[in-house]
Amino acid sequence: MRSDVLELLREAGGYISGEKMAVRLGITRAAVWKKIAALREAGYDISSAPRSGYVLRAVPDRLLEPEITQGLETAHIGRRIICYDAVDSTNLVLKELAREGAADGTVVVADTQGTGRGRMERAFFSPPGKGIWVSILLRPTFLPQDAPKCTLMAAVAVARAMEKFGLRAGIKWPNDIMHEGRKLVGILTEMSAEMDRVNYVVIGIGINVNIAAEDFPEELRPIATSLMQMKGAPLPRVAFLQELLRALDTLYAEVQRAGFAPVLAAWKEYAVTLGQTVRVIAPAGEEFEGVAADIDAEGALLIDTPAGQRRVLAGDVSIRPSKQ
Amino acid sequence: MRSDVLELLREAGGYISGEKMAVRLGITRAAVWKKIAALREAGYDISSAPRSGYVLRAVPDRLLEPEITQGLETAHIGRRIICYDAVDSTNLVLKELAREGAADGTVVVADTQGTGRGRMERAFFSPPGKGIWVSILLRPTFLPQDAPKCTLMAAVAVARAMEKFGLRAGIKWPNDIMHEGRKLVGILTEMSAEMDRVNYVVIGIGINVNIAAEDFPEELRPIATSLMQMKGAPLPRVAFLQELLRALDTLYAEVQRAGFAPVLAAWKEYAVTLGQTVRVIAPAGEEFEGVAADIDAEGALLIDTPAGQRRVLAGDVSIRPSKQ
Repeated sequence: MRSDVLELLREAGGYISGEKMAVRLGITRAAVWKKIAALREAGYDISSAPRSGYVLRAVPDRLLEPEITQGLETAHIGRRIICYDAVDSTNLVLKELAREGAADGTVVVADTQGTGRGRMERAFFSPPGKGIWVSILLRPTFLPQDAPKCTLMAAVAVARAMEKFGLRAGIKWPNDIMHEGRKLVGILTEMSAEMDRVNYVVIGIGINVNIAAEDFPEELRPIATSLMQMKGAPLPRVAFLQELLRALDTLYAEVQRAGFAPVLAAWKEYAVTLGQTVRVIAPAGEEFEGVAADIDAEGALLIDTPAGQRRVLAGDVSIRPSKQ
Repeated sequence: MRSDVLELLREAGGYISGEKMAVRLGITRAAVWKKIAALREAGYDISSAPRSGYVLRAVPDRLLEPEITQGLETAHIGRRIICYDAVDSTNLVLKELAREGAADGTVVVADTQGTGRGRMERAFFSPPGKGIWVSILLRPTFLPQDAPKCTLMAAVAVARAMEKFGLRAGIKWPNDIMHEGRKLVGILTEMSAEMDRVNYVVIGIGINVNIAAEDFPEELRPIATSLMQMKGAPLPRVAFLQELLRALDTLYAEVQRAGFAPVLAAWKEYAVTLGQTVRVIAPAGEEFEGVAADIDAEGALLIDTPAGQRRVLAGDVSIRPSKQ
């Protein structure tokens, strides 16, 4: 989709003739016309007028590489962006690319996912045209033991992107972004590592952007919501994704330079879990309740229980309704 | 290579006629003869005598699945064993199988490796017929943060197998098995994980069993040795691999039940690094010296330096010759 004709239209800022474009690009006018047709097909609103030529009136809010790249200006994240109409799962595609040697900061975006996949093999609802289903490849210098904190970093990046659109995120430990008890965003971080070296980390982020309540399958309606429902108006997907990639770019540079302490501090600003009574289902199936007191330097949730403080690094944490 | 004829020969413990085998297996005598020929081709010493039939005189010291399985009796490790004449790297093969869903305890063995691969992409010398080049797949229940300690567990398993053959191992942190300053065994552990769940761990172990000094490429001679050189006699590869899988099976069950503390304690028994003056090259290139004092609960090496104690989780550690 990278298009030289699109670049000329943007550059012109107004009408530009087909003949001028043909000369500039060293192609025939018929070839210019074909490229204009392809852009219109992709959703670009391009008007034409006799004698004046062509003008770019509007760009589609589609997750296309030239739109996402336009004005992105990140240092690492998104220097290569690969967009798909549909994939089984953006994490699966990007892990395959990672094994083939894809660079730090490579991004895979899909308009829709077949299965998607959340934590613990849970399916993730990813309808076309209404969300951002994106995976980001990192090749960090920190140790494998630190990699789990990438998931907190991703949650903070989403929260910061939301702020640019006037939305206040609440993060439920470790990385669910919630609004009024319903989920807006899911994050699945995976890694491949040797014992003292990370090969790669793939952060998958699924954002319910413009999904109406009735778009969700019935079983998800009580537990899922979208940015559009939260704001009361649709959001531009391209612009939101750009803000997310910028926020992640800044955080990643900070982590590589100074470690995760600033990320953990930022995470606490958005945490809705802390101070709440929570119910924990540990991986082995054990359940207990307590008050979420803090997270520690490893990102573990510290829970005050009648039997003393407990440290939770994995499992499901649900916030209990406060007693009236 | 799993062979019903081989099983009958073993079971017989002496001569068994071709006709009897044909009846037992419901095949023709010509088919029995073909299977005998294949076994001889693989190195089995099978004699035949008119009227008496066939007798199994000797089995080859080749890493063949029926030989490794024979009397193995492990609970998890090696319940499925896949043997190859040659692969590029047993870790690569097993990671591919892991992605396709291979079970906990699956083992891949090769008689020779093309490139092999050690830590930090270093090549590993794996000549045919003279070593054990094996990878073991684990799907543990512990957290990704604990997975790096698998490398210590593997080193202890090798040390315990060596003891069964009267050889005392020295482990150099974290996982090189040494004899008189030269390397006997290399271990490369890799993992795939989500943030709070290990998908799989692949432990690759390369053991120089029956390699003579002159078999090594010239540049390896000052730094590599073999079990045969240490013992002064060749060792049976099949029996050694069985002891290794048994030791790993026991340790793995212990770790899954009670955590890594017993492994760390066992590791210290074999450690040649502790108490020595060491030189550390950290991943970022920084170098320093100090006395290796202990390992902590995370498996990190604790080094006393003039500027205080330092904690090393990654990097190269070399033991300095003691001053005269």
